[in-house]
This record gives sequence, structure tokens and C-alpha cells, in this order.
Amino acid sequence: MREFSYELRVYFSDTDAEGIVYHARYLDFAEHARTEMLRAIGYNQSQMKENGVIFVVKSMEIEYKKPAFLDDVLTVVTTAEEIKKFSAVFSQTIRRGEDEICLIRLKVASLSSDAKRIVPVPEHIAEVLK
Amino acid sequence: MREFSYELRVYFSDTDAEGIVYHARYLDFAEHARTEMLRAIGYNQSQMKENGVIFVVKSMEIEYKKPAFLDDVLTVVTTAEEIKKFSAVFSQTIRRGEDEICLIRLKVASLSSDAKRIVPVPEHIAEVLK
Amino acid sequence: MREFSYELRVYFSDTDAEGIVYHARYLDFAEHARTEMLRAIGYNQSQMKENGVIFVVKSMEIEYKKPAFLDDVLTVVTTAEEIKKFSAVFSQTIRRGEDEICLIRLKVASLSSDAKRIVPVPEHIAEVLK
Amino acid sequence: MREFSYELRVYFSDTDAEGIVYHARYLDFAEHARTEMLRAIGYNQSQMKENGVIFVVKSMEIEYKKPAFLDDVLTVVTTAEEIKKFSAVFSQTIRRGEDEICLIRLKVASLSSDAKRIVPVPEHIAEVLK
Repeated sequence: MREFSYELRVYFSDTDAEGIVYHARYLDFAEHARTEMLRAIGYNQSQMKENGVIFVVKSMEIEYKKPAFLDDVLTVVTTAEEIKKFSAVFSQTIRRGEDEICLIRLKVASLSSDAKRIVPVPEHIAEVLK
Repeated sequence: MREFSYELRVYFSDTDAEGIVYHARYLDFAEHARTEMLRAIGYNQSQMKENGVIFVVKSMEIEYKKPAFLDDVLTVVTTAEEIKKFSAVFSQTIRRGEDEICLIRLKVASLSSDAKRIVPVPEHIAEVLK
Repeated sequence: MREFSYELRVYFSDTDAEGIVYHARYLDFAEHARTEMLRAIGYNQSQMKENGVIFVVKSMEIEYKKPAFLDDVLTVVTTAEEIKKFSAVFSQTIRRGEDEICLIRLKVASLSSDAKRIVPVPEHIAEVLK
Repeated sequence: MREFSYELRVYFSDTDAEGIVYHARYLDFAEHARTEMLRAIGYNQSQMKENGVIFVVKSMEIEYKKPAFLDDVLTVVTTAEEIKKFSAVFSQTIRRGEDEICLIRLKVASLSSDAKRIVPVPEHIAEVLK
């Protein structure tokens, strides 16, 4: 499974005084989608932490295409672009129906659960996402 | 329908450095649940605004019973306690399974969409929630 | 020092699609003000945690009087109403100039830093706030 | 004035269960810093909106260098890299003392206040930031 779809609803708490979704809030939506992608392949992040691995965002590119509004239903499509030994690259497209709202590309590092050193991406995750 | 159940997942963006859900975040969860309750009886808040009515929180009591954690699934049970001409009282219980996490009781005022004067709670909402 | 004044500015990230400060966000402002009150008497919360004490919100009453808007300068006046052995009650008034925006009254419990049992409020804090 | 410095404190509401600042929250800090930069040259965003101009983030690159923690004091240094007719590029460095925490580069578009069409960057802003 290299692609994963996650649906969400926009609430007041996601919007700002422009009447649209606040631009930083898309990063939350994207994080929720990656979390559900990992859960769908059998991992939850609290378990991963117990097993000594956490994923930490190292860099991110975001392109804002169109605004989203209160009550919108958005879909986040997450694709594992690249799984390396100690890191992974995901791309995420946030859509409202056919409209592209926001495009995200990010690199996560695989760290020990105390965040002090890099550790290999767990094999099962690497295999399933590849 | 006087009672409405809404389920949500706790993500990193909901937690704080204590490792638990940040205490203000339960108000967001409660707002999402009330929004879905209104939607379930045929209203969404953007429509309500077009129809000239918005609900604004006037007061709130919160009791924090137990902490909630990353990856928890929480249920918000919302009850319309009282529907008056220009306001309504809701009580909301946030649970994790049998555990009570947070109890909320709040009063909302029914205002014109420019928030400048009170207006009656729409009849259909009053009838269905009573 | 029983009363402490904290000033803040309202940014886009604090507002919602109603064009006003999102109602849950006042709890963040209030938390920031309590944190600065503790810092002003020589405590910061990371230190308190190392010393084995954390303050956890147990209950809260909020009254919303008037909306606040983007670019507003708000002042949070925090008063230690009551310092007991294992808990404390604070009242907080959020103002914009002479206007009362939001009134908060809350009880915090003094817990061990693993949040597992109640511990006495540190003596120095109790003395200074009384 | 092409460079502007803005200082902030990290509170519980900015952190997540990893014990560090939540990665999306740096975008809020960066937005607050740009807002204060504009205010320092005589603009506030509510006024700009009345004058028919808003700045909307179109794209962003973020690099996370080191984590920041509760109670940290951070400085956001904002530089106007490029002021074009209808857009501007800013780079922002978030530091804790000598440590680089987070690097942001973003492009904003200058839009009419209903966000429906592009309009020129106000001349005074363009001149001062150049």
C-alpha cells in the first residue's frame, strides 16, 4: 500500500478571520493522515515509541492552491514516495472533490524514541510502503 | 433527538508536553460534536449563517476527570438540556470507553449572523432537540 | 503578589471564521498568563516538573462577555483567590482596555510530576501568592 | 528595514506529546513575526484589509534543524528577500540563542481583500522593505 486516503471535515477551530482554513492547520491534517496510514498497516505511534522508533519531520514543501472553507469535506491522499534506510519521503495532496487545495512534500527521519540518534525505518513499514 | 454521539481520535496536534491532551483542546472536540449534532438534524453552520442565525458560546463549565492520551478514541455525547427562545443549554460528556475524561456544560445564545442582536432559535432546531 | 497582569496581541492563528477570537483560544491566553505569573515569582514550569510538582487544571468556569478581534491587545489579570494545601483557585479577567472580554475561574491541583498523586503546593509559591 | 526581529516564549499550548514544539506551530510563530514586521512599518492587517489588500501565503519551504522546548525563548528573524509587483518572498530564521531551530522561506501573494484577484503590493510597503 503506497497510497492512502484520509477524509476530514473542516470545523470553526480550523479556520481564521479570513473565513478560510488557517494555513498552518493543513500541516495538522497532513499529520493526522500519515498517522492513519501507519495505523492502517498495523502501527500506531504510541506503540512505535515503545518499540524505540519515532518519525520526526525534517523538511517540508507546501503549495497552497485554493482556500478551503468551514464545513468542507477534505481528502488527504498520502503517497510514500521513497523509503530509505533512515528516512522516508511522503507526498500529500489535500483535495475538496476535484479541487486541489494544498500540496505537501515532506521528509521524515527515523529516530530513537528519545530523539537522540537515527535508527533504521522498521522493516515491516519499509516493506509495506515500498 | 436529544442526545448525539460523536467519535474522534487523539493526534499529536491535540497533545502537550505533559504527554496528555491539552486542556483547551477538549473545547474544540466539544464544538466539533455540537456541529455534527446540528448537521445530523439538517443544519450546517455555514447555512445557518446565510439564514441569519449563529450560535455563540456565552458561558461554560468544565470538569477534568482523567487525562486522555495520544491515539485514544474518545466519544463526545452531547445532550440538549434546555432550549429556550433565544438560547440553549447543552451538556457534553467526553469518554474513553467507560472512563469519563471531561464534562462540559455550556450555554449558547442565538444571534443574528452579524452577531449584533439576539434572535429566536430556529423553530425546527428547537422542535427536534426538545 | 496576588495579582499579575499579562499582555498579548491577537493574531490570525487565534481567530476563527466568525472574524473573532475562537472561544477555546482564551484558555491558551489564560494558561500563558498563569505561566508568566509563576515565572515572575521565580518558578518556571519545566523546573517545577524537575522538582516533582506540576499544576493540572481540574475545573473551570468561563463567561464570554464580548468578542475580541484580530490585532486587539488584550490584558489578562490573574488573581490567586485561594491557595490550599493541595490545590489553588485562580480567577482571570481578560480585558481590552476597559472592556471585559472573558472571565475565567479555575481550580488547579498540585500533582507529582508523573501526575500520579497529589502533592503539596510548594511552600514558596503558597507564601508569595497568599 | 529589510530585517525584523521578533521574540516569543514557548508555552504548553505550543508543545506536543514528544515534549517539543509541535512542527506546525512554527508557522504560527512565523506569521506572528511577519505581522509585527508589517506593524513596525505602519501597517496592521485589519487596516490593510480595509484598504483592500491582504497577503496570502502561496508556498512555503521549511527546514527543521533542532527541536525547541517548553519555556524556551525563541527569536524569529524575518527578511524581505524579494518584493515584486504582486508578490513578495520572505525568509525567516527561528533561533534559540545561537541555535537554529527552524528555517522558513515563503512566498505571499498580494490579493484584493475579498481574495478574488491579485493587486499590487502597496507602494509604501514595497519601498520600506526593499
